[in-house]
Amino acid sequence: MSTSMVVLLLVGVQCLHVVALKSQLFTRGDALDYSSKKIVDYKTFYFNQKIDHFGFFENGTFKQRYLVADQHWQQEAGPILFYTGNEGDITWFCNNTGFMWQIAEELGAMLVFAEHRYYGDSLPFGPDSYSDSKHLNYLSSEQALADFAVLIRELKRLWPGARHSAVIAVGGSYGGMLAAWLRMKYPSTVVGALAASAPIWQFPGMVPCGDFYRIVSQDFAASGPNCDVNIRRSWSAIDKIASSVEGLAWLSGTFSLCAPLKSRQDSVFFKEWLQETWVNLAMVDYPYEASFLQPLPPWPIQVVCKHLGFDSSVSDHQLLQGVSEAARVYYNYTGTHACLNTSSTATGSLGFLGWYYQACTEMVMPLCTDGVQDMFEPQAWDFQAFSDECQVLFGVRPRASWVETQYGGKDLSAHSNIIFSNGALDPWSSGGVTRNISDSVVAIVIPDGAHHLDLRYDNERDPPAVRAARALEVGYFKAWVQQARRAP
Amino acid sequence: MSTSMVVLLLVGVQCLHVVALKSQLFTRGDALDYSSKKIVDYKTFYFNQKIDHFGFFENGTFKQRYLVADQHWQQEAGPILFYTGNEGDITWFCNNTGFMWQIAEELGAMLVFAEHRYYGDSLPFGPDSYSDSKHLNYLSSEQALADFAVLIRELKRLWPGARHSAVIAVGGSYGGMLAAWLRMKYPSTVVGALAASAPIWQFPGMVPCGDFYRIVSQDFAASGPNCDVNIRRSWSAIDKIASSVEGLAWLSGTFSLCAPLKSRQDSVFFKEWLQETWVNLAMVDYPYEASFLQPLPPWPIQVVCKHLGFDSSVSDHQLLQGVSEAARVYYNYTGTHACLNTSSTATGSLGFLGWYYQACTEMVMPLCTDGVQDMFEPQAWDFQAFSDECQVLFGVRPRASWVETQYGGKDLSAHSNIIFSNGALDPWSSGGVTRNISDSVVAIVIPDGAHHLDLRYDNERDPPAVRAARALEVGYFKAWVQQARRAP
Repeated sequence: MSTSMVVLLLVGVQCLHVVALKSQLFTRGDALDYSSKKIVDYKTFYFNQKIDHFGFFENGTFKQRYLVADQHWQQEAGPILFYTGNEGDITWFCNNTGFMWQIAEELGAMLVFAEHRYYGDSLPFGPDSYSDSKHLNYLSSEQALADFAVLIRELKRLWPGARHSAVIAVGGSYGGMLAAWLRMKYPSTVVGALAASAPIWQFPGMVPCGDFYRIVSQDFAASGPNCDVNIRRSWSAIDKIASSVEGLAWLSGTFSLCAPLKSRQDSVFFKEWLQETWVNLAMVDYPYEASFLQPLPPWPIQVVCKHLGFDSSVSDHQLLQGVSEAARVYYNYTGTHACLNTSSTATGSLGFLGWYYQACTEMVMPLCTDGVQDMFEPQAWDFQAFSDECQVLFGVRPRASWVETQYGGKDLSAHSNIIFSNGALDPWSSGGVTRNISDSVVAIVIPDGAHHLDLRYDNERDPPAVRAARALEVGYFKAWVQQARRAP
Repeated sequence: MSTSMVVLLLVGVQCLHVVALKSQLFTRGDALDYSSKKIVDYKTFYFNQKIDHFGFFENGTFKQRYLVADQHWQQEAGPILFYTGNEGDITWFCNNTGFMWQIAEELGAMLVFAEHRYYGDSLPFGPDSYSDSKHLNYLSSEQALADFAVLIRELKRLWPGARHSAVIAVGGSYGGMLAAWLRMKYPSTVVGALAASAPIWQFPGMVPCGDFYRIVSQDFAASGPNCDVNIRRSWSAIDKIASSVEGLAWLSGTFSLCAPLKSRQDSVFFKEWLQETWVNLAMVDYPYEASFLQPLPPWPIQVVCKHLGFDSSVSDHQLLQGVSEAARVYYNYTGTHACLNTSSTATGSLGFLGWYYQACTEMVMPLCTDGVQDMFEPQAWDFQAFSDECQVLFGVRPRASWVETQYGGKDLSAHSNIIFSNGALDPWSSGGVTRNISDSVVAIVIPDGAHHLDLRYDNERDPPAVRAARALEVGYFKAWVQQARRAP
């Protein structure tokens, strides 16, 4: 199957393998950003949401989790910063969105982090939520946006002092898409939105499918001599070595794989796992030690590339020895893992299965590689094959043009008060809004930034551009609050 | 039950009578406006729409009907005027929206009339569409708007020469609400909207529930001496006379009822039928002979009031004799009916049952009377009783605040390019937008206008204000098309 059939928004995954996927569990957990050691202090609440906002036959409710921090809130006058939760446990996003915690006092803001349905604790049908396509039917961006809109209205109605508070949507990645879409679809609930690293244009017909992997490759090319070249070389080296039983054993040993490779097919999965590893590194190529998807050193791609500087005389075995060291940078920076686990590439706080379902329905994001402008094996975008896999997996077929119809595609001219921020290192910037649309739908590009760097706690190693971006964002927030105060 | 529990958007109905309603059939038919004798020439098409835009479990499609007239269309340059069909047969709206036909040539416009799902020929489950709440589940304004957005995108993609055509949404009444909401929710599909007589604020908490019937009463008060006073008096007169068997027989005879009154309960329905009659007259109080809901003379309320000019010395029997003559103005202007049928008050082209379902789900429109500022029997708005009736009738309960959350309530500040036109005679203007919101969300009030008079063919008896309104509307249309042409 394709090496680029589906990509989880935060974490690139290569392909919907029926067997592999079905064995994946919907996982969740709480995580603190160990590198920042910041303390976040919130209260947890649950709100009764309708399971189906758009129909009346299913009239049941479920408990949507949301977190509130109002230590710095100035009642009546202060705004509410509302994080539009994405595909995972909301406590993880709460802990990884230091920006909101750091500006709360300056803005006198209440912070709310709302969990996305079907993730974390917010399961519409409890343990049965993922049992079949009938139960998964209410997992969609539209339902999630309606949850947020209903919750915001109820918070403003019931939370003492919140009635006149201006609400600002904040989100990163898919959460950033939701923040922008919330402002676009429910502008009376939020006065503006910060959509950080939100690839709202990564949909059919909007951007070239090859841009994503091209950016990944550029990150590697810029981080060490021959780094991208050697990764491009590695695929055929793996193929050659994996063609024998001895080779498979050598690969398994060299990479310290927890589950040794047994077959040629295993080596295909192994290559996809490596490809996803490089994608993830491009997303989290932060200038300081961090542990967003995995614990990592500062500028991790530079560290990775130290192991991939070979010239063209390198042997296949030497090359792959280097690749294995590079992979260990990502998977074993802490040195605590005895072996590398190829069944997962990132934090368990993300809801992979839920995102696969979303990719198989609305979130159709074409990606492709050509092996020339990128360092991967060539793979065209094949919608039909993708659709067929979705049918097998979930009994649903994706609707390729629905998101464009629903959210307006590239025509954002009628909207207002949205900031689209993107890091140029982030592959997802390929589908992001990186130029101003109007005076109030604006783009901020952070040249040295990876995936929503601006949403993280500040750090002494932050590049100046991200400091400037955060200052600009706070400036817009203040202007929106003022604007709302002046409104009749 | 309440005399004001539910009102069909175009046709006021007093109450959801379980028995009465269940016997109502979903009817449809074609109708030509006999008074205008204008010829409309269109082609009929059908488009495969998803039954459920917001979920992927139900993946079926149905055929949505739409009508196209492109005689005057200037390919590429000319706009598309897109009528967002409301609760009835689209051919009826097509024939009753002369304004679009009359401006097509001037604008070089293509006309499209799109039928609303569950009405006319556009039945998602064929004859089973109304069989139960499971089949009715996809009848909602959100699904209808998605139908329109998908259809517009496909028309622009597939209709030769339409790719760059600016689309303008036009609608009246509930169709006007849909036109405004289409621009608000899908601004990339339509450059602007004319929402004629669209009561988008007739929802809980937005406007006083008594305004609707107050306007009806004002229309009668202004159309003849003592007219409203005598209608107010008539209710107790009916009660007194209906208290005896002889009285019931007298009423049945005097009103030439097809189905004689047999009981006190029948007389309650009879009063509701009369109340609805007066409401309908207020909606269609046009200055010329017309046959929108019924064939009627010019300024029909004035004609009605000629029979209701009694002073306070009138006897109950004299008074009701006058009321019966007044009712005949509405029901038997053509003189062709041997008896008056109390089971229906208007054209069979409207889908009453569908609208009842919509009122029982999203379209919760509080109405009330006090007998003081209006000429009706006092009746409070009772949401709980209404909800209980909906539960019995359809197995669903209305969601009182959903429309406000979904469509933004009174906060329209983020939107653009919408005209809200209202006639001051029209009771639905109570829930309409009658003041400018901004430079591009504007209100037009037609003092002598009834229900979306501006959408009708012009007529030599038209008041100057409606001529001015139409000219303004065309001016805005041209400006929007220009604006779209200038866009990048």
